[in-house]
Amino acid sequence: MRDEDDIRAPEADRQDGTGRQDGPRAEGGAMPSLYGVSDDLVRRAAGALDEGDAPAVRGLVAELHAADIADLLERLSGDERRSLVELLRDGFDPEILPHLAGNVRDQVIAQLGPRVLAEALSVLDSDDAIYLIEDLDDDIQAALLATVPPATRRALEESLAYPEYSAGRLMQRDLIAMPAFWTVGRAIDFLRETPDLPEEFYEIFVVDPRHKPIGAVPLARMLRHPRKVLLRDIMDRDVDAISASVDQEEVARLFRHYSLASAPVVDDQGRLIGVITFDDVVDVIQEEAEEDMALMAGVGSEVDVNAGLVRAVRQRMAWLGVNLGTALMVSSVIALFEATIEQIVALAVLMPIVASMGGNAGTQTLTVAVRALALKELTPSNAMRIVMRETGIGAINGLVFGIAVGVAAGLIFDPFIGAVLFCALFANMLTAGLSGMLIPLALDRLKVDPAVSAGVFLTAVTDIVGFFAFLGLAQLVLL
Amino acid sequence: MRDEDDIRAPEADRQDGTGRQDGPRAEGGAMPSLYGVSDDLVRRAAGALDEGDAPAVRGLVAELHAADIADLLERLSGDERRSLVELLRDGFDPEILPHLAGNVRDQVIAQLGPRVLAEALSVLDSDDAIYLIEDLDDDIQAALLATVPPATRRALEESLAYPEYSAGRLMQRDLIAMPAFWTVGRAIDFLRETPDLPEEFYEIFVVDPRHKPIGAVPLARMLRHPRKVLLRDIMDRDVDAISASVDQEEVARLFRHYSLASAPVVDDQGRLIGVITFDDVVDVIQEEAEEDMALMAGVGSEVDVNAGLVRAVRQRMAWLGVNLGTALMVSSVIALFEATIEQIVALAVLMPIVASMGGNAGTQTLTVAVRALALKELTPSNAMRIVMRETGIGAINGLVFGIAVGVAAGLIFDPFIGAVLFCALFANMLTAGLSGMLIPLALDRLKVDPAVSAGVFLTAVTDIVGFFAFLGLAQLVLL
Repeated sequence: MRDEDDIRAPEADRQDGTGRQDGPRAEGGAMPSLYGVSDDLVRRAAGALDEGDAPAVRGLVAELHAADIADLLERLSGDERRSLVELLRDGFDPEILPHLAGNVRDQVIAQLGPRVLAEALSVLDSDDAIYLIEDLDDDIQAALLATVPPATRRALEESLAYPEYSAGRLMQRDLIAMPAFWTVGRAIDFLRETPDLPEEFYEIFVVDPRHKPIGAVPLARMLRHPRKVLLRDIMDRDVDAISASVDQEEVARLFRHYSLASAPVVDDQGRLIGVITFDDVVDVIQEEAEEDMALMAGVGSEVDVNAGLVRAVRQRMAWLGVNLGTALMVSSVIALFEATIEQIVALAVLMPIVASMGGNAGTQTLTVAVRALALKELTPSNAMRIVMRETGIGAINGLVFGIAVGVAAGLIFDPFIGAVLFCALFANMLTAGLSGMLIPLALDRLKVDPAVSAGVFLTAVTDIVGFFAFLGLAQLVLL
Repeated sequence: MRDEDDIRAPEADRQDGTGRQDGPRAEGGAMPSLYGVSDDLVRRAAGALDEGDAPAVRGLVAELHAADIADLLERLSGDERRSLVELLRDGFDPEILPHLAGNVRDQVIAQLGPRVLAEALSVLDSDDAIYLIEDLDDDIQAALLATVPPATRRALEESLAYPEYSAGRLMQRDLIAMPAFWTVGRAIDFLRETPDLPEEFYEIFVVDPRHKPIGAVPLARMLRHPRKVLLRDIMDRDVDAISASVDQEEVARLFRHYSLASAPVVDDQGRLIGVITFDDVVDVIQEEAEEDMALMAGVGSEVDVNAGLVRAVRQRMAWLGVNLGTALMVSSVIALFEATIEQIVALAVLMPIVASMGGNAGTQTLTVAVRALALKELTPSNAMRIVMRETGIGAINGLVFGIAVGVAAGLIFDPFIGAVLFCALFANMLTAGLSGMLIPLALDRLKVDPAVSAGVFLTAVTDIVGFFAFLGLAQLVLL
């Protein structure tokens, strides 16, 4: 114990090349970062690895948080990564693994071998352990589970029995539950005397004799009451018990809505079997938001610069194939009017404007609809109002841009072309607003994720309506 | 105190029309929800409000969480909302206000009047109070602050002095700090005996005599150690002190990276002035992810079905105007080749395919780039590798689709048209991959948010390259 601890600034610990830059004082550098490893540390580690200078490498990573070692591993080249894993092999910190991105994690696990992974599974929190093995092939998973201690194995197998992306997969099984008749004093004594409790917890769950959660006592409240007070007198009674089969998105919304730090998970009989904490949920929120964005852009379900090339090409190809299908439909609409275009080539020049404005207006509405559906802000009781609103926005913008572009085209080409352009733009942008809402609503009703597929249908609609309205009107009016 | 508390199921509290459905047991209904108010409750509340049945309305909302009352207010019609606010006016729970969406909140605050808002500011946590007033006009804000008690006013003014979206705005000023020489016993006694401590806290900050944070003790750890242990012996020493001026996105990444429950905020001198907790950060993560999505779709910076109509029209109009500009550039490229199209109308039929495939491939890459930049996964050290990767993906897909479409067009129209289509598709999809990375990287270098503007430039590039390559090659080869 050193006396100067009391007067040391919090940053003092970090000026020793641990790579964690000190936030408040960082002045140089374009992008001071509060966390993670610095570019400089990555360079120095890479250099030391290339030179095979093991002591230097060990010195650089010695003080790093597991999340930062994971960060470093991701940012090294393949060869350097392999060297670093080899160096860290003895006493490899299992906490690093859950922090690694998918394909880097697969490489590192393959290199470490099944023995190290089995050890990691026994040491990690059950939710992290599940995260590591849930995507493995069934036979590899079974072989691995055969090597871990029976108690751990049983717990993992129970969690794996719940569906993917469910609360049962997300939960941590180690938790602290007490009966309602315990006093604060007895609870504190239990916490002090019992070894092997979870390292982090934010509330104590109160359970009935059948192990059903009937309340929760946040630790802050526990600390603020005298020893003789009964838990039942200070517990929150409206605990949000989550069924293990509930979808993780639903869990995330629950946590966000009530600002929860943790919540109990129960089995079919309502018995307490696990706990979900805010940090699990933070990851879910980030992932779900990214997933919607990725799906809308047709990048597959993940946006990951480290994803395998073959997988990325394949995922995107699927979407591009669908897009090709709609593009061919659009082409066939244009082909209907080949004769018209041959006579008035200006139509070919102007037609992309109609399609492009409609597509953009539709995407705007679609984005609003997808997020509102995901956040449950769009419900049967307000759907009609929001459809009207979005159609109105489309119509207003259609009117404004239709007049501007129509007048300009009328002056440059021909008044009739201008009038046709105005009508087509207005009709297409109104349609865009309407279908930008109706398509995702219909898909949601059919239990299809609107983020995935609404964009395809929407672009098809706005392109086809746009070209058909423009070229069809032109044929009627101008020929 | 009732004895049956011990054997009551957690759901028992909720079958009394509070609107909170019981998650685990909900079986009927398409979308059982763990939280929030049910459609049924909204209908019943609306009915009672329309009939002016005040006791029935009060009964319905009596047991609701503030977040759920906010939810209900958002889902009622304007008239019903006004009636409900009037009913709740006496003893209006200030906690409802921060849960309300922007324009509903403005309406409710306007209806309640400045006196109720001033009272709310004194009662709410400082971060919630700041959230309520930070968007008000300067003079309204000043008038309001003049009516709150001096201590609250000073605290709010200090927080408002920090930039918008900074840690200083996000932080809560009430926190618990202790010197390192205190024992666990003394700390617990302090917590038990001091009135007016914050209701929720997750760790105790340890400060030096100059009030700089030098450590933190999570409550779970505090509870697990005997009374005589010194805080300095159990505290975490590598606390991540956040400067009050740091951007909230950076704060969110820090919390997510290290799975923090709370973190201290310090002023320029490194003194502890506030605390940020995970629930603030959950909101930031959600908002930032939504913002990127909204910006990419050109819906302005928020995707909110409750946003004002005029504002929504204006925000989208801006983006549609920019899109019109690029559409006109594209038209002028096509106009260059009017004579060619006049001779071979098939070109007008096929040209949307080239543009559409390029646009889609580019958007895929762009989405990856924007998220990777936002999450700091794209850094100078790996930028080159990822640019190569994305260009490669574009080229591979360009080759695949170019051959498929080229062969088909060759059979249907003319082998030369097929060859031209193949070359144009390949060139455009390769360009799409390359510019889908380079444009956001360049914008990021210029300190422009790539989510806002990259899409415009990208579509312009893929449209222009697509039409130019296709029509230009056609002119060279076919005429």
